Amino acid sequence: MAIGRHAGHGAGRRMTTHAPRVVIVGAGAIGAFYGAILQRAGARVEVVLRSDAAVVRERGFCIDSPLGDLSYRPAAVYGPEDTPVPGADFVICCVKVLPDIDRAALIAPWLGPQSAIALIENGLDIEPAVAEALPDHPLISALAFIAVSRRGPGEIEHRAYGRLTLGAWPQGVSEEARQLAQWFEAGGVDAKCRESIVRERWAKSLWNTPFNPISVLADGTDTVTLLETPGGEALARAAMAEVMAVAAADGYPLPDDAIDRNIEATRRMPAYRNSMALDYRAGRALEIDAILGNVVTKAERLGVAVPRLHTLQTLIRMRARESGSIG
Amino acid sequence: MAIGRHAGHGAGRRMTTHAPRVVIVGAGAIGAFYGAILQRAGARVEVVLRSDAAVVRERGFCIDSPLGDLSYRPAAVYGPEDTPVPGADFVICCVKVLPDIDRAALIAPWLGPQSAIALIENGLDIEPAVAEALPDHPLISALAFIAVSRRGPGEIEHRAYGRLTLGAWPQGVSEEARQLAQWFEAGGVDAKCRESIVRERWAKSLWNTPFNPISVLADGTDTVTLLETPGGEALARAAMAEVMAVAAADGYPLPDDAIDRNIEATRRMPAYRNSMALDYRAGRALEIDAILGNVVTKAERLGVAVPRLHTLQTLIRMRARESGSIG
Repeated sequence: MAIGRHAGHGAGRRMTTHAPRVVIVGAGAIGAFYGAILQRAGARVEVVLRSDAAVVRERGFCIDSPLGDLSYRPAAVYGPEDTPVPGADFVICCVKVLPDIDRAALIAPWLGPQSAIALIENGLDIEPAVAEALPDHPLISALAFIAVSRRGPGEIEHRAYGRLTLGAWPQGVSEEARQLAQWFEAGGVDAKCRESIVRERWAKSLWNTPFNPISVLADGTDTVTLLETPGGEALARAAMAEVMAVAAADGYPLPDDAIDRNIEATRRMPAYRNSMALDYRAGRALEIDAILGNVVTKAERLGVAVPRLHTLQTLIRMRARESGSIG
Repeated sequence: MAIGRHAGHGAGRRMTTHAPRVVIVGAGAIGAFYGAILQRAGARVEVVLRSDAAVVRERGFCIDSPLGDLSYRPAAVYGPEDTPVPGADFVICCVKVLPDIDRAALIAPWLGPQSAIALIENGLDIEPAVAEALPDHPLISALAFIAVSRRGPGEIEHRAYGRLTLGAWPQGVSEEARQLAQWFEAGGVDAKCRESIVRERWAKSLWNTPFNPISVLADGTDTVTLLETPGGEALARAAMAEVMAVAAADGYPLPDDAIDRNIEATRRMPAYRNSMALDYRAGRALEIDAILGNVVTKAERLGVAVPRLHTLQTLIRMRARESGSIG
């Protein structure tokens, strides 16, 4: 990979001198934000947008953030009509994980022989579709802990957090992951590499897999309403226990107190609508498979009973069918 | 009770000669329909309405039905401001079973020393609240198998069915139940007495308890969408199995093939929205406790695991809270 060669890297967290060319595929709220961070660190940031390309090309991104004004003009802005320029050092995919979106096909045109791919996306088991289609490129899997949303074309509101957890997929810490984490840290966000990104995904799924679909089925409700409804905390805990059982059967046992700690942390937060609840309320597509369906599929493969998760999944599918979308 | 005394009844299904005075408390679609049937049979039918009293007093009920034109003028129409006239032979309660409605208080003013009470209402364990408040009156519990709805003030559409199953509560066939069934049959609907109305309620709950809340949570979906969604039939069957387990623990084992038969019957019907789905779509209150909550409560008391029913109940409660109604 270009950075490694140019930087003459060895051990440790030494910063590369070569500024990487980064292409962000899917510069929605998440992609635009992390693009700002990398550009702040000195990277050349190019963005690929499905919509809003004209606005962003003209005005750049306007990003309100507790970190300050993160507004920036990307080095290049590509819309659906533009010809891709291959050979990025990093192609960072921030597209939603949906059944009808072929992420590998969106990533491929930007790759060169030395390119690494990074996925900053929610969910479990979201890597294989990309890894199998593009096996010759180092794959970095990353989790974003962030509250950020799109207010309008090119307008992003970063409300809180921003921490990233990265790792090579399926495991280990690659040089590419380490380099990318350093660029993020140089741009001002906490970005840590972990030996097992799959374990990190299970740990995040423990909360996401129950809370997201429960919120949607409760009409996009927030965390306080969810936990304060009689039976609500019991349902959340029981569904989390099902996730833990699948994680353990998959070889990733989570700590015994993981459920307690998640519930306590949720109770300490102010009322909060998770990303799927927000997507639901805005009429956007929901990442059901990534967040919930892949866990249920794994449970079935491993022979773990998940009656609550299965109920949630089926109800959401029915809703999608009833509303005339997928399902 | 008046009928019995006047009729000098003995064994068998001999018709009484005395026309009973019937007060229908809650003459919505169901109450208005069965009032029409009883008036057709020769009973004196009086109705108590929360809304629509002025319209019905002026024009009577207009009822389209496959049985013909069932439009009628009740012998008396009472609104919330009118003074009750006690001493009915039968007080028939067709009010929805909701936590904030005190049905015994609505029934009491119409009772005399000889009055029998009949409940034509959905759900399980809906009788104790009335029986405990009004212990000195024979209590008839009845299930209606009917598709009927209100089109507007005083306007009712009877689409199909109409069969009644009656019994004394908690068990047996009382003379009052038999008499009332005869009046319904004389009016043209099939009305059968059963030795165990609680068993009949369990048998009806087998379908209602899962299908009603599942439909609501799937945004008021119909039976075909519910069963055709991947995982939908499996969810319905698994939730029905939970109902069967509670019924058996309660002393009412249902036949082994009850689930298969219910699913097959549902598949033979055209796409159908159940009563709770219709209430949900119309923004009306949902009979959650009667249909689902009382089954879950019984399961908890009897130590039967009902993860899917509990999930459904909690999600519906959250929705109610989120929308600012009860929960």
